[in-house]
Amino acid sequence: MRSVSIVSAGMTAFGSFPERNIRDLACEAGRSCLDGAGVSPSQVEALYVGNFAGPSFTGQNHIAPWIGAGLGLHNVPCTRFEAACASGGAALFHAWTAIAGGAYDMVLVLGVESMTSQSTAKTTEILASAGDIGAEAAVGATFPGLFGLITSRHMHEFGTTRQHLAAVAVKNHSNGLLNPRAHLRKAVTIDQVLASRPISEPLTLFDCSLISDGAAAVLLCASERAAEFDRPVRIRGVAQASDRLALHEKADITTFPAVLRAAEKAYAMAGVVPSDIDFAELHDCFTIAEIIALEDLGLFPRGQAGPAGLAGKTSRDGELPINTSGGLKSKGHPVGATGVAQVCEVFWQLRGEAGERQISDVSLGLTENLGGSGATAVVGIYSR
Amino acid sequence: MRSVSIVSAGMTAFGSFPERNIRDLACEAGRSCLDGAGVSPSQVEALYVGNFAGPSFTGQNHIAPWIGAGLGLHNVPCTRFEAACASGGAALFHAWTAIAGGAYDMVLVLGVESMTSQSTAKTTEILASAGDIGAEAAVGATFPGLFGLITSRHMHEFGTTRQHLAAVAVKNHSNGLLNPRAHLRKAVTIDQVLASRPISEPLTLFDCSLISDGAAAVLLCASERAAEFDRPVRIRGVAQASDRLALHEKADITTFPAVLRAAEKAYAMAGVVPSDIDFAELHDCFTIAEIIALEDLGLFPRGQAGPAGLAGKTSRDGELPINTSGGLKSKGHPVGATGVAQVCEVFWQLRGEAGERQISDVSLGLTENLGGSGATAVVGIYSR
Repeated sequence: MRSVSIVSAGMTAFGSFPERNIRDLACEAGRSCLDGAGVSPSQVEALYVGNFAGPSFTGQNHIAPWIGAGLGLHNVPCTRFEAACASGGAALFHAWTAIAGGAYDMVLVLGVESMTSQSTAKTTEILASAGDIGAEAAVGATFPGLFGLITSRHMHEFGTTRQHLAAVAVKNHSNGLLNPRAHLRKAVTIDQVLASRPISEPLTLFDCSLISDGAAAVLLCASERAAEFDRPVRIRGVAQASDRLALHEKADITTFPAVLRAAEKAYAMAGVVPSDIDFAELHDCFTIAEIIALEDLGLFPRGQAGPAGLAGKTSRDGELPINTSGGLKSKGHPVGATGVAQVCEVFWQLRGEAGERQISDVSLGLTENLGGSGATAVVGIYSR
Repeated sequence: MRSVSIVSAGMTAFGSFPERNIRDLACEAGRSCLDGAGVSPSQVEALYVGNFAGPSFTGQNHIAPWIGAGLGLHNVPCTRFEAACASGGAALFHAWTAIAGGAYDMVLVLGVESMTSQSTAKTTEILASAGDIGAEAAVGATFPGLFGLITSRHMHEFGTTRQHLAAVAVKNHSNGLLNPRAHLRKAVTIDQVLASRPISEPLTLFDCSLISDGAAAVLLCASERAAEFDRPVRIRGVAQASDRLALHEKADITTFPAVLRAAEKAYAMAGVVPSDIDFAELHDCFTIAEIIALEDLGLFPRGQAGPAGLAGKTSRDGELPINTSGGLKSKGHPVGATGVAQVCEVFWQLRGEAGERQISDVSLGLTENLGGSGATAVVGIYSR
């Protein structure tokens, strides 16, 4: 299959914009992405839209051609991909599949979610539908509830502490402070995280990511044509994998087999090993999720990602910077946009365009996008 | 790109099964499909699920890995594709893209919808979300409303009559009577259609398709490996295209540009012309939609599909049998399943397995799957 490159990225700010509709957000990101590459809508051969629950949040189904028409993409296939919080990653993975296989040379991948016009209770209910509603939501297990269980077990198995969790939040908020597109630009201390109000034992408010509106887009192009563009970024490997939906069906809730499987395939495709990775954007929907991702991806041994973070190893100036964008924790988590926004950050870092949060000497970046409590995972690896 | 074949098909009965959940339905169709080919779940490399509004109808999001786990498809990518009533067709098109490009050799394509556990009012509201809710649903334009407008304009432009429309219903109900999986196995006469209660001027009850539960599956395989299977059916051409969502944004509401574009590409890929087509499954969500599809696909000149149907040309024993399955009208329309069920019928007809409704001397079949009021279309062409 052919090599595929990213030639442009575009994003809205992430935040609370209840007055803006989902098409508005998507088109702003899409136009910014196309303009950045000097590509006209008529050159785009397909639109891949990652969106988790647009119909539940906004009432509107069939959003892909609606967004496509808003961008001036007429006639071409415009399709929505849904894989819960990994919807953006799923759109990226399938767009890569199509270009790598020769179906298209140029595809726009767009992730979007509009969440804040609903009440918190309704939003919590919609988010819970990414788990097994009959077995989990029906008995009151919201996502903070599920990740609370996961956290407790990880603490029990590996001695992970609330300080380890809090260090993830402190680091990601510190990074987000430097990202003008981040939703919550606010520094927090470990003590503040520990003292924030309980959400789901042992998680407190600052262990949880945000409910946000926003959109992100990347323009994918066959690498053989990418030389037409300034400083393309190559997709070295990308893979999607699945697992059971409900936590009680899993043998071990301190690891996500879909991440293990997707990572194994992505590393093999890229011809690299975990120690080659210079930086990564990981799916920190809750602080524990970043810790488990670091371990599932082989970036730290199991049980050692928490202490590594507390010791500063994953900070911007550490040996393996994680979530320089601020992550879902500080940048925000408009669900369908998240998997694409992670790729935007890697694209900008690899091109030296990450502004105040730019890290130096990076040549190989990774993204990990998780759906639900691990039933979908998409892992990508990128270099200049 | 490589040739792709269909090596098995499976379907639930379509009907009203409010007591069965969406995973149950999907897994019945999927297992039937895999068993039909003697393929084990471990041989399937990806699951492509077409589903319009599972979350709105059932509360459950993230259904693709949930269904995948139910079928024993662990680890592999399991993704939901949404393109309104063309969700099943979109799943098929993207699965074709992936196999044709070399990403996989074998993929399960599954369409499913579970609709009847909701009230009619709620169902109508959910269906309306496939149109532009801000411009259409907000002012009361349900789908029967939109297709009523389309019908009136087609009558005005081309002299199409209510008898022409009724003939579509009579024929499709006559076909569905012979399909053991059809939802409404009931013969109707032109007089009964004309006398049925008004729904949306000029459409009456029997001009409208059904609200159904059901699932359908096809197993796709690279043609170079299809010789391992009994009588594979080759996908000669398949294409997806898009258009604007709202009727008022279209220059002419008596034709669907997305169908024109998808058909043009599918015919070119197959190297055939409309007169080569022996039979077709068309998206008769309303009787007018079958008439417009026949014209957009070039099977009859514009304005002549209505008279042709009334003259029996599209009947089972006519020159171009249309919707031998009973179509959405009689077989039923579990939205996400429809595009895949159309392919099942073509598969069975081409293999001589359509039982009492089998037509003779057919070698080239076509499917047309329409999303919303034409914003998505998928057209496929198949032969032994």
